[in-house]
Amino acid sequence: MTAMAKDDDVRESTRERLLKCARQLFAMHSFAGTSLQMIADRIGVTKAAVYHHFKTRDEILDAVIKPAIGELITLIDEAEKLRGHHARAEAMITGFAGLAVKHRDLITLMSADPGVISVLGQREDFGELLYRPLLLLARDSEDPVERIRANAVMACLATTAASILLDDVDGETMRTTLIDVGHRILGLRRRR
Amino acid sequence: MTAMAKDDDVRESTRERLLKCARQLFAMHSFAGTSLQMIADRIGVTKAAVYHHFKTRDEILDAVIKPAIGELITLIDEAEKLRGHHARAEAMITGFAGLAVKHRDLITLMSADPGVISVLGQREDFGELLYRPLLLLARDSEDPVERIRANAVMACLATTAASILLDDVDGETMRTTLIDVGHRILGLRRRR
Repeated sequence: MTAMAKDDDVRESTRERLLKCARQLFAMHSFAGTSLQMIADRIGVTKAAVYHHFKTRDEILDAVIKPAIGELITLIDEAEKLRGHHARAEAMITGFAGLAVKHRDLITLMSADPGVISVLGQREDFGELLYRPLLLLARDSEDPVERIRANAVMACLATTAASILLDDVDGETMRTTLIDVGHRILGLRRRR
Repeated sequence: MTAMAKDDDVRESTRERLLKCARQLFAMHSFAGTSLQMIADRIGVTKAAVYHHFKTRDEILDAVIKPAIGELITLIDEAEKLRGHHARAEAMITGFAGLAVKHRDLITLMSADPGVISVLGQREDFGELLYRPLLLLARDSEDPVERIRANAVMACLATTAASILLDDVDGETMRTTLIDVGHRILGLRRRR
């Protein structure tokens, strides 16, 4: 191993530790309540070491949520390739229930923290990420009842997966029950 | 009218204006982002005049949300007097959909603002206000699937009623659709 490659390995590892720690601190103290100094202290590096990887707190947040957002975009893209409302809604519900359970902690952060919402709102694709799932879930995107049901599915799956009252429930029970709840709200028959 | 009664009238009216203004500012700038000075400036009184009615911002928040909390407690009390899961769940869903639509702005405030959640959490009855509706909605409060569904109903109704994506939908369509969504999630047949 060259000295250069070794240095890259260490850098990658510090970056990963930083992101993991930031994710925990954001969840505990909110995004606004977490400073770069707190992150540095917690993993035992200097603030300069943090700056070496991320110039701002917004950059850290962006890196923390990027993988989950990427998975959501892939899910939406794939669902949009399907034909017919049933197949599209089915794919969106099943995929989103999986993501909601996998990223429980991020959902709490992204939905309840005004600081995060304002950073998210600056993303060019933020509006799309809200609207495209609703278009997949509603039979008719102009009909108020269909729009309410589509919104209800997204709100319901995200909020319920992240509820502290349910943090004892295992992920698989949560996932399958949320899929069922999504089907019930839209009145979709399950394919078996 | 005596001078005393007149003074009371004026005081009541300033208090009402204060609360109305505070409710708007909390919704716009969050609870943490609203100072007593901002409230005073907006209704054109001195900060001392605000202090005459409320000693702290927490007291104002408490007065803003008290009527809605009172209605929720009444709803829960009445639903608990009913016999059988169907009647109780039905009453909770119908009543809560009505409250969620009536108090859309407060729900946004109460669910998404960490400052508010921490003040609410200090209420002695806060835990009860979360748990009692769930007990009315779940057939078996130990069963994870029933618990997820009960939580889903509450999350769904509250979050959907307050969604900015649906603020063009009229209250009655919202209310009746949310009642239907609640029934669907629990698999309740409607009584006609």
